[in-house]
Amino acid sequence: MTTNNYSLTALETLAREVFLAMGHSEKHAHTAACNLTAADRRGVDSHGVARLSGYVRLWEANRVNARPNIKIVHQTPSTANVNADKALGLVSGSYAMNLAINKANKVGCGWVAVHESNHYGIAAQYAMMALKEDMIGFSFTNASPLVAPARGKDRLLGTNPIAVAVPAGQETPFVADMATTTAANGKLETLKRKNEAAPLEWVQDKEGQSSTNPDILKEGGALLPVGGQTASHKGYGLGAMVDILSGVLSGANYGPWVPPFVSFLPLAPNMPGQGIGHFFGAMRVDAFRPAADFKKDMDNWIRTFKRSSAIDPKAPVLIPGEPETMIESQRIKEGVPLLPAVEEDLLQITKKFNLSPLQSL
Amino acid sequence: MTTNNYSLTALETLAREVFLAMGHSEKHAHTAACNLTAADRRGVDSHGVARLSGYVRLWEANRVNARPNIKIVHQTPSTANVNADKALGLVSGSYAMNLAINKANKVGCGWVAVHESNHYGIAAQYAMMALKEDMIGFSFTNASPLVAPARGKDRLLGTNPIAVAVPAGQETPFVADMATTTAANGKLETLKRKNEAAPLEWVQDKEGQSSTNPDILKEGGALLPVGGQTASHKGYGLGAMVDILSGVLSGANYGPWVPPFVSFLPLAPNMPGQGIGHFFGAMRVDAFRPAADFKKDMDNWIRTFKRSSAIDPKAPVLIPGEPETMIESQRIKEGVPLLPAVEEDLLQITKKFNLSPLQSL
Repeated sequence: MTTNNYSLTALETLAREVFLAMGHSEKHAHTAACNLTAADRRGVDSHGVARLSGYVRLWEANRVNARPNIKIVHQTPSTANVNADKALGLVSGSYAMNLAINKANKVGCGWVAVHESNHYGIAAQYAMMALKEDMIGFSFTNASPLVAPARGKDRLLGTNPIAVAVPAGQETPFVADMATTTAANGKLETLKRKNEAAPLEWVQDKEGQSSTNPDILKEGGALLPVGGQTASHKGYGLGAMVDILSGVLSGANYGPWVPPFVSFLPLAPNMPGQGIGHFFGAMRVDAFRPAADFKKDMDNWIRTFKRSSAIDPKAPVLIPGEPETMIESQRIKEGVPLLPAVEEDLLQITKKFNLSPLQSL
Repeated sequence: MTTNNYSLTALETLAREVFLAMGHSEKHAHTAACNLTAADRRGVDSHGVARLSGYVRLWEANRVNARPNIKIVHQTPSTANVNADKALGLVSGSYAMNLAINKANKVGCGWVAVHESNHYGIAAQYAMMALKEDMIGFSFTNASPLVAPARGKDRLLGTNPIAVAVPAGQETPFVADMATTTAANGKLETLKRKNEAAPLEWVQDKEGQSSTNPDILKEGGALLPVGGQTASHKGYGLGAMVDILSGVLSGANYGPWVPPFVSFLPLAPNMPGQGIGHFFGAMRVDAFRPAADFKKDMDNWIRTFKRSSAIDPKAPVLIPGEPETMIESQRIKEGVPLLPAVEEDLLQITKKFNLSPLQSL
């Protein structure tokens, strides 16, 4: 399949114009566009402009407030709970992470929970905001319930990612961003397009039996927590931890009540909280030891792992974040390839908002 | 195999006497004995009195200081870095977690890194100290390098657990305590004793090929990061995160340099840090929202998951920590069964220190 490539600037400009057309302020439109296209930049194609139409539909369904009054409802010197007022998570995420960083600057670390929010794109983007401050950043969110707990059939959790970003000295920073499922939904989409079967540990059918059908979620099936065939209770525990920190601690919805990303699905009845929830953390490295010493050791850590023996010499041991950094360098030069379905989607959006169509490179 | 049962009090008393005989203060001996036997109480038999002889051997090898001068080397209102002065991790762990709790009481949350320490038993024990304070507790440690990174052959990480404890209202608290490997070493020991093969996703041989030999670590093999056959890069990322927070951030050793628990293995040359490292956190629930509201939602969370549909109705969906709580109730009534090899081990220790032998129930 041949694809056209688009410059990152063009994608970001289009996203900004769409968010402006939805009624966002210049500042919020800019922030949301940067955070959305961070996914395209880092190669997480499922979470970038491919989702722009999804955000538009959420806005059309009155689930996104383009003029949010984001406010701190409770705080201590090192923590805060933020009501996002139905903002895009792409907007409230940056607000909350900046707040965590400010608190870390003052008292060593900062942790901010967010409720009444929406989906926030890729988790890593917020954790990485800590890097330039010589801080370790954390980012978590709950998400549409598609995952069954270990031993269970019901879809009670989202793919609930854990992201952590750690600054280094001369080496590229360590940036882990992991769904707490074996595979995120985007990977199933890819298999469906290629007409390939899913590995056994990715999904189960509605009775909880193993399945290799990448389309099984449409038939009541569920994604499986990370852990493989003998340890999915660990992925369940991690996904649950993310749900509790993001949802229960903030006063957002949790478990089966998390509002779905797709606007055509109804909201669950008797929702216990407000919107979806995120959780962010920033810890100043020099709140523990001198930053220069830490970075020297991080460089040593990274080099030790990179230089260790690979099973297949052609597939070296990678540092978390390294593949994304390689894709980023490539895409800055060559642009981002978009699938025809995404191009068509973006064309429809430009028509809807009377914007100039996207030009390929 | 028939086993004798021993009361938890008898095990704790014996451990306390052994730690006293090593030269610990009354206070430290008591703390270490409680933290060690917490493993026996919760059914994590590999980490309880079965390891007492291992701690004794570390002390004999001059790697444990029974009269440590544990001190804070750097701190901010919400963070601290603690030098454990070669204390048992069983002692420095409680010190550091109490410090995290004190900081959380003052400024909302507290995070404490520890270096120059030793192994600390079960991770959950420290995280659970937060529960009675209406705080969420976190506990991490690095450990003897036995785990290969995804795509790698070298043993560069420990089983590096993540533990998180969350208070509830009327329900039993949520307590997750997970090695970031598919299976911890103790499970391999059990398979060896039963002469059974290991599942494919647990270990690899020294060339990085799949193995079902539970004894493969003796032949240069490695434990595998959690994630199964398609997602071990996630377990690697999580284990790495634990190593960085516990080791690099504290100034302890990390990666392949973490001192092994077994005293007969030499320390690695050119160690970059001091001892092994831990990382603890405490976050006051009411630093985010009223504790009563949070606990009501946690009860709802727990009940929702417990009552959800199980694949096998005889194997209900469990809440992390629930199996351990069930074992605890049973062991408080019936005592702790010890394997003959452990009984013999404890007998030798009582002889070494001239203590009265342990009496079974």
